Amino acid sequence: MAATILDGNKVREEMLAELEKRIKEKGLKPRLATVLVGKNAGSITYIAMKAKAASRIGVATEAYELPETTGEEELLKLVAKLNRKKDIHGILVQFPLPKGLSQQKVTEAISPAKDVDGLHPINLGKLVSGDESMPACTPYGIITLLERSGVQFAGKRAVVVGRSVSVGKPLAALLLNRDATVTVCHSKTKDLGEITKQADILCVAIGKPKAITADMVKPGAVVVDVGINRVEGKIVGDVDVAVKEVAGAMTPVPGGVGPMTIATLMRSTVAACERSTQSS
Amino acid sequence: MAATILDGNKVREEMLAELEKRIKEKGLKPRLATVLVGKNAGSITYIAMKAKAASRIGVATEAYELPETTGEEELLKLVAKLNRKKDIHGILVQFPLPKGLSQQKVTEAISPAKDVDGLHPINLGKLVSGDESMPACTPYGIITLLERSGVQFAGKRAVVVGRSVSVGKPLAALLLNRDATVTVCHSKTKDLGEITKQADILCVAIGKPKAITADMVKPGAVVVDVGINRVEGKIVGDVDVAVKEVAGAMTPVPGGVGPMTIATLMRSTVAACERSTQSS
Repeated sequence: MAATILDGNKVREEMLAELEKRIKEKGLKPRLATVLVGKNAGSITYIAMKAKAASRIGVATEAYELPETTGEEELLKLVAKLNRKKDIHGILVQFPLPKGLSQQKVTEAISPAKDVDGLHPINLGKLVSGDESMPACTPYGIITLLERSGVQFAGKRAVVVGRSVSVGKPLAALLLNRDATVTVCHSKTKDLGEITKQADILCVAIGKPKAITADMVKPGAVVVDVGINRVEGKIVGDVDVAVKEVAGAMTPVPGGVGPMTIATLMRSTVAACERSTQSS
Repeated sequence: MAATILDGNKVREEMLAELEKRIKEKGLKPRLATVLVGKNAGSITYIAMKAKAASRIGVATEAYELPETTGEEELLKLVAKLNRKKDIHGILVQFPLPKGLSQQKVTEAISPAKDVDGLHPINLGKLVSGDESMPACTPYGIITLLERSGVQFAGKRAVVVGRSVSVGKPLAALLLNRDATVTVCHSKTKDLGEITKQADILCVAIGKPKAITADMVKPGAVVVDVGINRVEGKIVGDVDVAVKEVAGAMTPVPGGVGPMTIATLMRSTVAACERSTQSS
């Protein structure tokens, strides 16, 4: 039997409609600054998608486009300026940055209260401590998609393959916060298939096509594919499509995790705006 | 065959001797403020042990003792004052605090640069990101004990039982930073024994005597017992003593993890002093 498809586009639409309503009803004026350095084609696409979602629901955006040759000091100065601007509630610096610019330094320079990407160490630490007020967008999008699809976490075996700071590690923390028993696997893991086969919930974020094949998946498992790989001009995930025949539910690529990341970014921007309104 | 005993007292002595030498050679003047609120007997003992270790190696201490009835505002004021004092490199507020005082608020009030307990969310987030410059003391003490005992981590299956913010979660991050494949178990975990039996490295921190019995341990595994439980007037760990016959190596209770926590606190205080000297 083929797996139920966990439709990220559908849940994104629900979330955006809810956010639009919340903005209108509360009379919020959320505003997101986007910062693009250089002309990476992927980054331009992502920024455009984010700006489009924002404009649909009533989140104002202001876009900063800096040349490839921008120095670190100049970028940090812009971030400091945006931190000070009271009408800006979220700051999104699109990664990857051109070589020579430290993503870590830029992330740490963003005011934690405006860090809508949720990657500042203090927000990561809070998330690990159980405070999910400014969560990393991709993992929180995944959790939201699963929750809204009725997936239960408590007591379940969850396996996360991949340990990046933006996806694998915060995703493990979010699953643990929901009482799953969580295992994190990575490039140094031995007998990966033996471990993934124990998973009731299997999340894969390693950026390697067909890294997970059907024989590595427990029948009926919920499988989340975070991979976005370009193979012969097509976008494919990290999970082999044949896994659909084994899994109980699965996210498609594209149309699974990707749309949820953008919806979560909007959610965090609106929430940051609400908090700033309450505290002022 | 009985397990090798991982002797925390011995490694603590090595570490303290090294720190004493480092302080003398570099002419450092490390200074630790300890804050005790109320008269919890356990807390008084811990503070005394920390002060004793400090005085042995040349870390100056200044002790603040506040009455049980101290208000949160007053405690936070003291922390703010200690944050500002340039000659103080580490601030240790002994937990548990009396009821009505928020440990979370106090932890977040300590300057991250002086947070020698390593529990501030930003230090937890950095640790998760791979920056271990101000690590949580107990987990880092465990890792140091294992490293100095020749335990290898890369590719090994590590299982952490317990998910507290001060032990289980940061310990999982430290093991992951060393390329272990890490599973976190807790009170909601099903078939705990099935999972612990897969562990090459098994760390238990749940505060429950005999929670781990010999049948739950893989022969030859490294077993770390973080538990400190008082049973019929005796201190016992979370791991049944019979596990010694199955494990390859094991920490004793007492004399295993406990001494390493204090040695790590000293290490973090000296390191904080070095960093403040470099930056001034």
